[in-house]
Amino acid sequence: MGEVRVGLIGWGTIGTGVVKLLQRNRAHIRERLGAHLTLGGIADIDLTSDRGIKVDEKLLTKDGSALIADPSIDIIVELIGGYGVAKRFVLEAIAHGKSVVTGNKALLAVHGEEIFAAAEKAGVDLGFEASVGGGIPIIRTLKEALAGDRNQAVYGIVNGTCNYILSRMTQVGGEFQDVLRQAQAAGIAEADPSFDIDGIDSAHKLALLVQLAYGGRVPFTSIPIEGIRAVNAADIAFAKEFGYVIKLLAIAKADGREIEARVHPTMVPRTHVLADVSGPFNAITIMGEALGQTVYIGQGAGMMPTATTVVADLIEAARNRLGGTPGRVAPLGVPFAQMQRLRVKPLDDLVTQYYLRFMALDRPGVLAQITGALGRQGISIASVIQREREEKGAVPVVIHTHEASEKSLRRALAAIGKLKAVKGKPAVIRIEDRLS
Amino acid sequence: MGEVRVGLIGWGTIGTGVVKLLQRNRAHIRERLGAHLTLGGIADIDLTSDRGIKVDEKLLTKDGSALIADPSIDIIVELIGGYGVAKRFVLEAIAHGKSVVTGNKALLAVHGEEIFAAAEKAGVDLGFEASVGGGIPIIRTLKEALAGDRNQAVYGIVNGTCNYILSRMTQVGGEFQDVLRQAQAAGIAEADPSFDIDGIDSAHKLALLVQLAYGGRVPFTSIPIEGIRAVNAADIAFAKEFGYVIKLLAIAKADGREIEARVHPTMVPRTHVLADVSGPFNAITIMGEALGQTVYIGQGAGMMPTATTVVADLIEAARNRLGGTPGRVAPLGVPFAQMQRLRVKPLDDLVTQYYLRFMALDRPGVLAQITGALGRQGISIASVIQREREEKGAVPVVIHTHEASEKSLRRALAAIGKLKAVKGKPAVIRIEDRLS
Repeated sequence: MGEVRVGLIGWGTIGTGVVKLLQRNRAHIRERLGAHLTLGGIADIDLTSDRGIKVDEKLLTKDGSALIADPSIDIIVELIGGYGVAKRFVLEAIAHGKSVVTGNKALLAVHGEEIFAAAEKAGVDLGFEASVGGGIPIIRTLKEALAGDRNQAVYGIVNGTCNYILSRMTQVGGEFQDVLRQAQAAGIAEADPSFDIDGIDSAHKLALLVQLAYGGRVPFTSIPIEGIRAVNAADIAFAKEFGYVIKLLAIAKADGREIEARVHPTMVPRTHVLADVSGPFNAITIMGEALGQTVYIGQGAGMMPTATTVVADLIEAARNRLGGTPGRVAPLGVPFAQMQRLRVKPLDDLVTQYYLRFMALDRPGVLAQITGALGRQGISIASVIQREREEKGAVPVVIHTHEASEKSLRRALAAIGKLKAVKGKPAVIRIEDRLS
Repeated sequence: MGEVRVGLIGWGTIGTGVVKLLQRNRAHIRERLGAHLTLGGIADIDLTSDRGIKVDEKLLTKDGSALIADPSIDIIVELIGGYGVAKRFVLEAIAHGKSVVTGNKALLAVHGEEIFAAAEKAGVDLGFEASVGGGIPIIRTLKEALAGDRNQAVYGIVNGTCNYILSRMTQVGGEFQDVLRQAQAAGIAEADPSFDIDGIDSAHKLALLVQLAYGGRVPFTSIPIEGIRAVNAADIAFAKEFGYVIKLLAIAKADGREIEARVHPTMVPRTHVLADVSGPFNAITIMGEALGQTVYIGQGAGMMPTATTVVADLIEAARNRLGGTPGRVAPLGVPFAQMQRLRVKPLDDLVTQYYLRFMALDRPGVLAQITGALGRQGISIASVIQREREEKGAVPVVIHTHEASEKSLRRALAAIGKLKAVKGKPAVIRIEDRLS
């Protein structure tokens, strides 16, 4: 029986999960692969911390390059993260003709052009199922299961930290900063949470999803990103009144010859399947021309769920190695060299419904001024909430608009910003009413 | 550029969808496969009906065997259904060394032993994604995406007809027979609906899912099956009062060295993700040891969703043909020849909660007699509803039990059946409270 040997670079949480799975499910994997899938080495700068697992000391090294160069190693798993050393190791492994499995969405979203091209040129596999959606096999699904259909839309909740914070604000209450601090105390948010809460992580994942879904290149920098720092308890409460739940969504849609790709807090109808996806769960919806709607839900992060997807990629790469077909399917489904750059629709041209909250002095005529400014840009109003009355100080004026272009909205907001009765910055949250 | 040629046998609804997709997405598929995927022939007994698509007449034949024998044809799609001719054609195609794609769950569930073994021996692919869950890529997911993990449970809604009927009874109301007739009038239920409503179709699908999930043989005949004919409006209403929704579930669970595999109407907590899956949608949940919970939702049937999965299997088989790796992954993930027969837990040993509804005369002491009979079998009671009072005639006595074995329950029911005050057959519906 054959053997395929795996070198792991980056022995953190997910790496430990991968080692656990390879050890625990050795026979199970052998049955499915028809060969042994063996851990051949681990490289990390920290070889002494107790990870709660037993590993032969001879497998350990601080020298990632040596592990890559080791001719007995067939596949390299990169789980360091970031753009620096990780990039060097991935390219080194590819240059050595080794297939690579990684969970590094940041690296692939930002330096994909270089890395995908290198993997294809070298004819090796580049598996990155672990980079999007934790335990959800969404990469494989887009690449292979839906390969015969044209995707109309791919959207979902792809960041567990944001989903935890927004779910908690919705279900338990509290302002963003307080809930963020709780999430940090619980180990769910990082000490520096900006990558998550500013939407960068979601946009990294979207950059990969949109390229897989549409078979064209989408530079990461072309994706408009808005995080969840500005979402506050009042907006969550008003959303509920309008029948919505606020989620940070990553959204890609085909629109004629252009592609929409954007990350922002979104009001989703309370009856939509994504509205019920709470806490650390991720969920991705794919709308296919022929397929209709499919939804994929699973844990968005965590040691073992993510390790499962790494090991699935390892089995795939091992199978290709044994069968003499490495690089069997291009990393993004379509060979990168053939992929055209897609036209991402400018945010200004986006047409959607909006939730707007202004803080305004409670004087006669203020609502008329605000709605007048909207009307002059052709933005019509679906409903208004203006309930509280105060002699002094500002009260919220909440408006749910019909569909309007982002450009018109910006013009209207500029005009409204000049009104003396309107205080501070308005809250603006896009509403996706026609997600199905 | 290479070409792989497809022969279609069975030009019904799904077959028409496959032809449409191959025509419409020809360039799209070529980009992903790196070769042409071409319709090389269609065999059907009816070549004249208008299917709303244009096909070169030279491709049409009434002779399936001739199409199979045609050396220019690489892959055969079997979409006839049933055990008869379909079986012959599938085995013939395999014997000719051609890969096969089929949506025929009945055939594979009942004659899988013969067909899987033949495909493996011939070293061809046997794709059957279209046989379970319509547009949901669940076969591929179990076979490849979760190959490194051990599955604890796989369960879900896999029959759209039953789900439509039960959803409608829940949301709109009505008795089973009336709603069935409406479904038949709407073309959602067949003229002879027994395969669907008696749970046979769900059990066919479960037979495939359980073998994929656990890598062992499970004969179709070892799966206990109960359909939805006996579910009535009263039970749906009482379920709601207890916080449940009634769904026809196909359930597989690992339990020590045994496997549970069963199909029956099930009360699912109203908050469970499956409770919201309505109408023609299917949904399957996989609980993995490492993975945790994942849920897959999509349209359970229909021309284009199902055609999408057929075409995905065609692309896969074509890729393997071009790469010289047909039979790359065994049809059930583990080579059939190596698969042990799994021990399916006898229904008598099943431990679950029950919903029981007895029709009893409203006399003093009847409830005590019923609960006494349950208590003597060690079955304790979570809650009781006995509301209506009538001088004459029977009133419902509804009981939600704690966990008990099916054997104890049967004994208790036999004793209760002998009570003079209890009329007719009780309604018994299993409750799955710990699905997560």
